[in-house]
This record gives sequence, C-alpha cells and structure tokens, in this order.
Amino acid sequence: MQSAPVTKYRPFPPVNLPDRQWPGRVIERAPTWCSVDLRDGNQALAQPMNVEEKIEFFDMLVKIGFKEIEVGFPSASQIEFDFCRRLIEENRIPADVSIQILCQCREELITRSLEALKGAKNVIFHLYNSTSPKQRDYVFGASKADIVAIAVKGVSLLKKHGQALIDAGTNLRLEYSPESFTSTELEFALEICEAVSDAWQPTKANKIILNLPATVEYATPNVHADQIEWMCTHLTRREATIVSLHTHNDRGTGVAATELALLAGADRVEGTLFGNGERTGNLDLVVVALNLYTHGIDPKLDFSDINHIRDVYERCTRMEIHPRHPYAGELVFTAFSGSHQDAIKKSWPHQSPDRPWDVIYIPIDPADIGRSYKAIIRINSQSGKGGVAYILENEFGYQLPKLMHKEIGKVVNDLADSKGAELTPQDIHDVFVREYIDRVSPVALREFRTMERTSTVTCQADLLAYGVEKIVTGTGNGPIDAFVQSLRAAGLPKFELVSYSEHSLGSGAEARAVSYIQIKTERGTTFFGAGIDTNIELASIKAVVSALNRALDKK
Amino acid sequence: MQSAPVTKYRPFPPVNLPDRQWPGRVIERAPTWCSVDLRDGNQALAQPMNVEEKIEFFDMLVKIGFKEIEVGFPSASQIEFDFCRRLIEENRIPADVSIQILCQCREELITRSLEALKGAKNVIFHLYNSTSPKQRDYVFGASKADIVAIAVKGVSLLKKHGQALIDAGTNLRLEYSPESFTSTELEFALEICEAVSDAWQPTKANKIILNLPATVEYATPNVHADQIEWMCTHLTRREATIVSLHTHNDRGTGVAATELALLAGADRVEGTLFGNGERTGNLDLVVVALNLYTHGIDPKLDFSDINHIRDVYERCTRMEIHPRHPYAGELVFTAFSGSHQDAIKKSWPHQSPDRPWDVIYIPIDPADIGRSYKAIIRINSQSGKGGVAYILENEFGYQLPKLMHKEIGKVVNDLADSKGAELTPQDIHDVFVREYIDRVSPVALREFRTMERTSTVTCQADLLAYGVEKIVTGTGNGPIDAFVQSLRAAGLPKFELVSYSEHSLGSGAEARAVSYIQIKTERGTTFFGAGIDTNIELASIKAVVSALNRALDKK
Repeated sequence: MQSAPVTKYRPFPPVNLPDRQWPGRVIERAPTWCSVDLRDGNQALAQPMNVEEKIEFFDMLVKIGFKEIEVGFPSASQIEFDFCRRLIEENRIPADVSIQILCQCREELITRSLEALKGAKNVIFHLYNSTSPKQRDYVFGASKADIVAIAVKGVSLLKKHGQALIDAGTNLRLEYSPESFTSTELEFALEICEAVSDAWQPTKANKIILNLPATVEYATPNVHADQIEWMCTHLTRREATIVSLHTHNDRGTGVAATELALLAGADRVEGTLFGNGERTGNLDLVVVALNLYTHGIDPKLDFSDINHIRDVYERCTRMEIHPRHPYAGELVFTAFSGSHQDAIKKSWPHQSPDRPWDVIYIPIDPADIGRSYKAIIRINSQSGKGGVAYILENEFGYQLPKLMHKEIGKVVNDLADSKGAELTPQDIHDVFVREYIDRVSPVALREFRTMERTSTVTCQADLLAYGVEKIVTGTGNGPIDAFVQSLRAAGLPKFELVSYSEHSLGSGAEARAVSYIQIKTERGTTFFGAGIDTNIELASIKAVVSALNRALDKK
Repeated sequence: MQSAPVTKYRPFPPVNLPDRQWPGRVIERAPTWCSVDLRDGNQALAQPMNVEEKIEFFDMLVKIGFKEIEVGFPSASQIEFDFCRRLIEENRIPADVSIQILCQCREELITRSLEALKGAKNVIFHLYNSTSPKQRDYVFGASKADIVAIAVKGVSLLKKHGQALIDAGTNLRLEYSPESFTSTELEFALEICEAVSDAWQPTKANKIILNLPATVEYATPNVHADQIEWMCTHLTRREATIVSLHTHNDRGTGVAATELALLAGADRVEGTLFGNGERTGNLDLVVVALNLYTHGIDPKLDFSDINHIRDVYERCTRMEIHPRHPYAGELVFTAFSGSHQDAIKKSWPHQSPDRPWDVIYIPIDPADIGRSYKAIIRINSQSGKGGVAYILENEFGYQLPKLMHKEIGKVVNDLADSKGAELTPQDIHDVFVREYIDRVSPVALREFRTMERTSTVTCQADLLAYGVEKIVTGTGNGPIDAFVQSLRAAGLPKFELVSYSEHSLGSGAEARAVSYIQIKTERGTTFFGAGIDTNIELASIKAVVSALNRALDKK
C-alpha cells in the first residue's frame, strides 16, 4: 500500500450528464419494494436457512408489507424448488403478493423454474445475464452480440414455455437484469435492455421490470444516480417499464446510491432486511424505508415492531445486527454524552402530537419502531449532570432540584473517572444513597421531637456528634428552622438554609417522602443534603443533617 | 407507524442551488484527515478506553499516518487531562502531528485546556457551540446574537489566554464548529463562521479550520453536499479557511455525505476508524480512505495491515466489526455464490502488475490490505462447481480436469442441500475422497502387474469383484489400455476411455501422483474416476477402477 495505487487502480469514469436533474429533486413517494432476503440474502449465509426458517421469514416479509418477494432460484437447488412448491401448495402467498424467482437464460433452467411455479397467482420471472466487459471477456469469452442473443433467447424461451402457466391463470411478469449493469458501458446496457423489451413487448398495463444492478459498488453514489437518470431518459418504452435498483455496499454507500437513484427516476428497489447479502451485503431496505418515514413519506412497510423483526432475522440468518446499525442497532437510541443527554431532556418536553417530531439528537421517535430511549441511557465519565438526574428521576423517581444536578453530576463523574467504565443506573443510585441519604457522620440524628406548635416551633433532637451524645433544642418559625437553630446552639458550625424541596416517593401505604435541602456555610459554599422518611417532617430534618455532614466532610 | 407520518415528520428542506458544481466533479486528491477516535469515538463506548489503551491507540493512529488527532476534552475529565499531559510529557507526539482538543466557549474550560496543552508543539484548539434553532430554543433559550456572542467571546478568550502558549513556542491553530451545522439556517451558519473568523483573523499561512458538522444526519447526502458547496462559495476568507467535514451516520449515508461534500469543495475530514461514535457512529475514515485508494488516489493513510488495526481497535474499544463491514469485515472477501466464485477464478489469472486491478466481484486486491480471498471461500448449496474445484485446488492441490468440475459440483451440492449448511473445505475434501479415491466396491484392485513392455503391454490384475476373487489379464497399447481390456475379458460391463490426466501431489520423497480418468459406458454416460499412488502407473489404474465403480453404482 506504500506504492502509489495510481498504477493499480483507476478512477471510475464519470457520466457526462451536464443536464442532470436528480440533484435538485426531492423524494416524494415510496418506491415499489422487492425483498431478496430469501435469495441474495440467504445465499450469502454461512448456514443458509432451512425450509421452516424460510417460511417464517416469508410470513414476516408479508406482514411487514412486501408485495414482491424473491423466493429463490428453484432450478439451481432442490431446497429452493421445494420451498417454492410449499409456498404455493400451502396457499401461503396472499393474493396481492407476487413471488419472484431468479433464473439464468437457459432452457432447462427456465422449464424447471416454471415447474416450480405451477399454481402461483402472481409471478415475477427474473431472468439475468452478465453484461460488463470483464464478464464478457474473462467469463464468457463472448461478444456483445452473443450476450444480447443470450438474453433475447431467454425471453423467447420464457414466452414459449411460460404460456401454459399464463393459460392456467398465472399473472406472469418479466424482470430482466443486465447483471453488473454499473460496470457495463451505458450504451450497451441500453441496447440489451431495449432488445429484451422488444422481445417481451411490455405494455403500460403489463410493464417489464428492468433491474439495473450495482452488483459490485465501484463508484461514488452520484455516478450511480447519473447512470440511472441516463437510462431513464433513454429507454424508449419508459412508460411500459419499471426501472428497478439493486445496489450493493462495497464502498459503504449502498443506501445513498439507492436514494440518489430514486431522485434520478427509478421506480422500484430490491434489497434485504438489514442489508444481508454477498460480501458487504445488499441494500438495507429497513434503512431506506425508515429514512423516507422520517421525512414524512409513508414507506408502506411496517417496522413498528423492529425488535421482533430483528429477533426473527437474527435467529433465521444467524447474523447479528451491529450495535450502531441505523434504527435497529442496540446503541442507536443511547446518548453517552452529557450535552446530548441534556439536549434530549430539554427538547423532549416540547413534543406534542400536533407538532413535528423535534427531539434533539433523536431523528425518529423510538416509540414509532417499538423502541425506547429511556432504558438505554448510560453514564460514563463523559456524561453530564443531566444524564445522572435523568436516571435518578426515570429509574428511581427522585426529582432532584435543578441546582443539585451539577453537584451530584460531579460526584458521579469522579466515580466514573476513577472506575474508567460505564456506570449502571444501579451504580448511580448507590452513589446517591451513599453520598446523601446514608450520611450519619460526623453527626447522626437519633431522635427528633417538636415540642409545641403555635406561631413558632420548638424542637428537641438527640444527636451523636463526633462520637458524643447530645440533646439539643431550638426554636424557629417551623420545624426545620427550629432544628437549624438547635444545631447552632450546640456549637456546630453555622450555616443557613438556601432552598428546600420535597416530594413523595411511590404511593399508597408504602409512600415515603424525599426532601432536598441546600445550605450555605459561613465560607459561602453551598451543599445539598437529602433525606427520606415516611414522615415528611423527618425527611427534611434528615436532609439538613445530610447537608451538614457533607459540608463538614468537605471542609 | 400505521398512521401517516406526514403529520409527525417533515421532508428536510432542500438547498436552492441550481448552479451546483459538485455533481459533475471527481475527487482527485485525499483530504486532510483528522481522527476523533479518542474523543467522539471513545465517549460513545460502554466502557471507555483507559489511559494505556488510549496510548496504544494513539500510537497506532500515528503509525497509520494521521497528522491531526483529537485527543480529548481535557477540561471536562481528569482522565482526558492526564492523557493529554502524558502524551506531551513523554514526547509521544511526532513533530509533524498536531493534537486537537475539544472545548466549550467558557473561560474556565479554556484556561484549564491550555494548562493541559503546555509544552505541545502543534495544537488545534477546537471550540464549538451549538447553533441550530432547536438548540437555541430548547437548550439555551438564546437568540442568534447570543449564540454568535458566545462563539466570538470564546475566540477572544482563547486569543487572550493562549498567547502564553504561543509565546512558549506552540503552533496554536483554531478550529471552530457550529455544532448542529446541518440543522442550522445556512445564512446563520455563515454569519457565525464569519464572526469567528473576524475575531481570529486567519491568514493563508495560518488558516482557520471551520468544521461543519452533520451532528445528526437528517438529510440525503446530496443536500449535505449542497450545504457545503454553499458555504464554500460564500465564505469571505475561503483562502484562509480549511473547510472541514464531520458527518454522522443516522441515515446510513455518512460515507456518501462526506464523499459528495469533498466534491463540493471541502478540504478536511473528521471521523473515526470503523465509524465508532455516538448512536450510529461518526464517519468511517477507513472506508473513505480505501474508497479513494480503489480509485487510484493515494489516501496518505496506511491500511496495509488492516487485520492488525482491527485487532487493536476491537481490543481497545470492546466493539466488534460487523462481518459485512466494507474492507474490514470477516465476510467481505468471501464469495458464496457459484457464479461469483467462477468469475473470480476466471478473472484472477488475467491480473498482472502492469495492468489495473480487474478481478470480478473483488473491488480491491485483498493483499493490499493484508487480507486474502483464498482462505475464506465457502461452499453451500448455492455454490457452483467452480467453487468446489477452487477449494480442491487451492486448499488440497487437486487440479481437476475442467469437465470433472460439474460432476463433483453436483455431488457436493447434493450434500450441501441435504445438510442445509455451509460445507468447510475439509468437508469438500472428504466428499472427494469418499466419492472417488476410496471407491473399492463393487470392484477392488488387489494387485496389478505389467508383464512385458514392447509395442504392447500385457497386464495381470487381482480383483475382488462382487465378492469374488478374480485374476484378469489383458493386452493393450499401454498399461491402462491393457487393464481396460482385462476388465472386459473378465465380463465386467464394457466402457471406453474418454480422457486422462495426471499430476503430482506434493513434492520430494512424499510426492504422490493423482490421476483422473473419464470413461463412457455403453449407454453413453460418462463418469470420472480418480486414483492416488506413489507409482504414477498405479494411480491411473486405481482411477479406472474408481470410474468403473462409480458407473456401476449409478446404473
């Protein structure tokens, strides 16, 4: 790799298309989708699906809303033949769903495939041959004319042998793929597509599907869009043609190549769930569909329970979905960064059903696909105060005063720093309890009684302070004030109350109160304390002791 | 998700840019790269790297060739502060490498960051604040003017407090990010970038880096390119500005967004190895760099040992690379499909050092990144004859005659079908041995002697045929012919020899010969047989017996 690669690799030739229209367009509707999970996806598995798994997968595809599903290459494999028969004979194919089968342009394969399809209501017969110069030269040793002849002969054979199927009531459509389209000279790709169309004679009522595969992704996605736009504008039977895309992901831009080619005029998209397929995979249909969804376009596919779809996918294919996979990955609704957590927390309350979705850092409402943000927020040394407060509130019910967020944020941050690892919600709860609730040193409260209640309150408290038992008394305008006065009288350092808040924890007989008290020492430093008790008065008194102990500890 | 999403989501507003130039351009050189693995990547890990891991990772980034490396947010975390100090104090930063640190526009954070940087030779001080309407409204409750003031004040504070660092010999550069750039009104993004530039006063010799993040990916990648082209053409100090990209992958198009924005005029790319980062991750630098490489552009980054980089990455981040990840995934140089295997096999021999790389289905020579195709080809029921022959030749040294490929392909295919799983190379070898080499029924050869050798050869063979011991003799123009004649004389079914080939297996004293014999029965069916022996004559005789036994078995 140290040598200049210019001697070994070449730039992909651009398309001369000065009048290209696609960069100025916006996608306005969902394409026709075709799942090739059971063919392209399945063939690339270390352990292909068995028939039971294929049936489960097929049923799921139907439930998601696919109307076109490639079910196999029945002439190449007994398993795929049997699967096709089983779908038909067990009436598993809804009336509005077409099954698609792949076949080379050879007579014995075409007739065998037609056998597999007997009794099907809607069929897309997918013929292909490879058209690129490399394939012509290295694999077939064939001229352009030979390659065209193979395709045209395939179509003629299908017309001839397929008539019986049509006569028996099958709606038979043709899909033709010039395989390796994107590596083929555009003029030749057009020539072979036109020849196939001539042979098939499609109409506006019975269109031909011309599928233009990026069998290997070689170019940047704008070049792919140029190629598709060029084809769309040059096909003579454009109105009788469904232009179909079939991108791969060798350069990591398969989704973009499909999206830009939809701008360029394509009508239909082939791909797989989560981008399963040879090498880097086929196009990920889930991502393209949900990308449309987040732009307000109904994708006509239902991913409202993406976790279930993921589970079936992972079980049947034995492939795992990466934690960062868009929409479906375990981590994609997780915010690690404090500023992200803070922005999410601040923007979420502004959402309402009559306004567009607008939560910062979360481009889709996780609930729309059956997921949630709540459960997966994580805290590490990078997380800010907002994240900690969020966990304590959402997981444990503590509504900390806003000014307390920073204080506990720092405590948690120090722990995460020293631990060098993510903290679980339970870790954070433990820190909160240890730091605030369980503070009984140097001052512990043994007993607290209010003596009388008129306009003032007098209290008596039994304390253990620095190892010495003390009974202190004080009077104030309420029990907390009285307690603060009593502490002063006992010679403990002076402080004043800055703020106070309290709320219930849980409900019913089990309900307790949690109180948060902020104090300021004579040096001007503020400290929070917190206390919990079934008695709301006692919760506050404990919170004062907590704050005092924290102040004494930090001095 | 059943409800029309149009009420909840909106299309991303396009950029009105009728004169856009990027769709007609080609990328011609590598951008400046900046790794943010130790910051954006690390912060999004369930368990962030410890200091030792960060140092190992930093050293690897340097070795790959990164000249700009963001090392942390030292004012936000003690660990990141300590790591920054350690890099500097242990002289770990080469003279031509800049470390970059992230910092908010607040005085105490700026001064703390400068403390962390003392003694560094080349520093990029990366200031940011968030600029989008959502951030302004929900998070900061701030006007546009407030947001501009925050940024400008940050720059002024850096100028003021950073002077000491400059005086001490540090080359201090400024990077400014209007965070959430792609969600910000373009005019306002321009306004704040101009204000920051005004405050910093960059020159052609000391450029400012304006980093324009797609903090969340909301639009199709063509819109991102439009945004970047618009900025590039509107910035007044374009010649004193490095326009930097920082894409994310929420819509699965982060790589495309970066590539198209490079066409649109950007100079610099921020990202991480393998796309680590919040949610769906940051841009994957490895993919963009190797995409350039496959177009003949020197990326100036060395991924010639990608397996090692992957190992360090996986160990330090505790993240796994998906099997279908471009370039680095376990499966990306695997071909499952028979037609793919066949095309690879046929196109590879055409490669030569003086010609561009041209292997079908393999867009980069795996050897260029320290990987191989050989070890990972797999066979399942979809694999064709070529794949089986490839395995037998490359893993075990058998050079099967071309006509034999189809026969053994079918045998292996049937096994894969019935097993419903991938076969290992060893499985395939076992099938070959069982089907051909170990065939001793119904006819087994016990002994074979040639009697004399003039113009003809006479042989005597001891056979066990259908459980009966027989001694047969025959004469022919060579030992094989003689043996065939002897079998006929013994009453075994007639057949004729069609083809013969033989080659050595291994070398030296251990060398054996393997012979392949094709016979045709009286019914016109052909069968191959194979035999192995240290004696080349005996290998052929065994191959004849093997072919005969296969023919008798199939009758």
